[in-house]
Amino acid sequence: MTDLNQKALDLHKQLKGKIEIRNKMDVDSLEIMSLLYSPGVAQPCVEIQNNPQSIYETTWKSNTVAVVSNGSAVLGLGDIGASAGLPVMEGKAMLFKAFSNVNAVPIMLDTKDPDEIIRAVEMMAPTFGGINLEDIKAPECVYIEKQLQKRLNIPVFHDDQHGTAIVVMAGLINAFKLIGKELKEAKVVVSGTGAAGSSIIHMLSEAGISNIYAYNVNGPVDKTKKDSYDFVVQGICECISDLNEEKTLSDLLKNADVFIGVSAPDIVSEEDIRSMNHDAVVFAMANPNPEITYEKAKRAGARIVGTGRSDYPNQVNNVLAFPGIFQGALSVRATEINEAMKLAAAYGIQSVLSEDELNDENIIPSALNPEVSRNVAQAVAQKAIEMGVILK
Amino acid sequence: MTDLNQKALDLHKQLKGKIEIRNKMDVDSLEIMSLLYSPGVAQPCVEIQNNPQSIYETTWKSNTVAVVSNGSAVLGLGDIGASAGLPVMEGKAMLFKAFSNVNAVPIMLDTKDPDEIIRAVEMMAPTFGGINLEDIKAPECVYIEKQLQKRLNIPVFHDDQHGTAIVVMAGLINAFKLIGKELKEAKVVVSGTGAAGSSIIHMLSEAGISNIYAYNVNGPVDKTKKDSYDFVVQGICECISDLNEEKTLSDLLKNADVFIGVSAPDIVSEEDIRSMNHDAVVFAMANPNPEITYEKAKRAGARIVGTGRSDYPNQVNNVLAFPGIFQGALSVRATEINEAMKLAAAYGIQSVLSEDELNDENIIPSALNPEVSRNVAQAVAQKAIEMGVILK
Repeated sequence: MTDLNQKALDLHKQLKGKIEIRNKMDVDSLEIMSLLYSPGVAQPCVEIQNNPQSIYETTWKSNTVAVVSNGSAVLGLGDIGASAGLPVMEGKAMLFKAFSNVNAVPIMLDTKDPDEIIRAVEMMAPTFGGINLEDIKAPECVYIEKQLQKRLNIPVFHDDQHGTAIVVMAGLINAFKLIGKELKEAKVVVSGTGAAGSSIIHMLSEAGISNIYAYNVNGPVDKTKKDSYDFVVQGICECISDLNEEKTLSDLLKNADVFIGVSAPDIVSEEDIRSMNHDAVVFAMANPNPEITYEKAKRAGARIVGTGRSDYPNQVNNVLAFPGIFQGALSVRATEINEAMKLAAAYGIQSVLSEDELNDENIIPSALNPEVSRNVAQAVAQKAIEMGVILK
Repeated sequence: MTDLNQKALDLHKQLKGKIEIRNKMDVDSLEIMSLLYSPGVAQPCVEIQNNPQSIYETTWKSNTVAVVSNGSAVLGLGDIGASAGLPVMEGKAMLFKAFSNVNAVPIMLDTKDPDEIIRAVEMMAPTFGGINLEDIKAPECVYIEKQLQKRLNIPVFHDDQHGTAIVVMAGLINAFKLIGKELKEAKVVVSGTGAAGSSIIHMLSEAGISNIYAYNVNGPVDKTKKDSYDFVVQGICECISDLNEEKTLSDLLKNADVFIGVSAPDIVSEEDIRSMNHDAVVFAMANPNPEITYEKAKRAGARIVGTGRSDYPNQVNNVLAFPGIFQGALSVRATEINEAMKLAAAYGIQSVLSEDELNDENIIPSALNPEVSRNVAQAVAQKAIEMGVILK
């Protein structure tokens, strides 16, 4: 075991849970008990019966989300199951609290059946103001999110899909500020078309980028073969460019402005990077080993390089997005988190860095910068109000 | 609205949730993030895969229960639904934390189907060390509890059934100490055979009492007609005495030593009380209006009277039982909460009052006495170990 792993295990054993429930008020008299429990508690109950929205005024629903997972795609560990995934969801809940003061409750569901997950979450939804899906394997996760958002009037957000997309988008906006190109005219190659990759492509499209090529383990995605793909890849076909002829990843990268990888280690060469346009932007986020290392990409002439790792510049870290997104959505009782709100979140992140702070090695703010979630929350809340996707 | 109701509503609006999630450790450095979240968190995950019980050492499961309800039988309000029931379950969670430091998470399930509740709780069970069912209507609640305890290896406890039974039992033990009769020889009449009533009868039987008569809205329960009853009433037939002839509640009360009511207001008269044996013990717990008022019962000669109300002596308050029961069960990783453990909990409650403290108006300790849950936890844990109903 490495030093870090041993230390992590020891700290987990010392804490026996990274989060806990705490009372907001001491229960130290029979009077408090009679106000906050029987018989006084009947009054807010009756109030909610008469006016369902008052549940946001009298319970924790207004500031609480569930972090729901079945442990089928946990970090780099894969399908480790509901029990073994609990430490990760507790960690996620801890980050929610630390970065946006949102209460998050880990809920591990011991099932592989997407419809069982959907029904369980639908049933428990009255308890929560939002649902953060996490570490559920693709393509089921996409189906689960879509179905739940259709059925529920609280926001549903699968962080593995959209978190990375939002932070990448924030980084891209800042990168293009620096290099002085027009983002909408960029040629972008995305490697990986699973949960994260497909969401990235939808977000690029939402931002007005149309020259997009998608690549996965089976080769480049070809819109003319749409019917042969699963529903996740089918969904991105409307966002991508025509292929015209058989192409390799290397072919696609020729004259590209941006490479975004959420796929597999070492699939991009220095040669590939050299074939890209000047001022190339590379987000190589396969974890822990990226599509091309930071060093190699830089050596081959990429101007701006981001990875998923905290030991290199420009870390794409989801924690920049999800706390503020839910904080913002909860604050206005948003009924969904749509593409425009996600793009607003990206702008919320990128705008934290002033022109002075911005440079090739600093296009994404630090995960510990408290301004980020405030900014994101504000941007998301404002967009929800603008679009009218709030409880009426 | 009464003063208390207005105050209760105002306080709920001020708090916006009586409980919250708190982090046990500040997330103030990238190092802490790397230990408690990615990549370090992978280590406890792998540990749990290799050794499932280590989930108790590295997560909140060791000290966390779910408070599960569908809001179908809330306090005196009845079937108000999942959303309107949330303030009560939050209150329950607050009491858990206040009296035993156990984390409790309210989970409202929007369904009336017992099998959906069972399946949802079964799926989410990896997250929790125990399941407290609450305010689910009878007879479904009995079926749900039984099925869940069969399927899960964590304790399942429906407080509306057993909480009252345990506290009544504690009161009875102390009452019989005072009056100097032998509990096992007592004639006991129980009015109400729903969730609470049936559990009371099972507990009396577990305590060795055999001279029990049960009465409900249809009259006295007659073992010879067992097949015509629902499964809850069928379950108590093995615990009760033969009727021999048609009887009214008044007939049953003649020469009874104990009356226990969890039924309806004003169904017992002073005449009835006078017909009981000397030193009669009366627990009239219909809420808010008991089967006979404290004043009337006393005037008619009952020696010891308990109710569910905090404004009279000898309040039967479930908060004396459930926090310590789960604390004890969690502390030894008990796999169930069985009848013997419930009886041990009753002894844990009653033993808090010393001989000196004990008197006719003080047979049950105060809900605010911190010694109670400690005592109960110890008694329950010890019994679980004795019986070997702990994770191996």
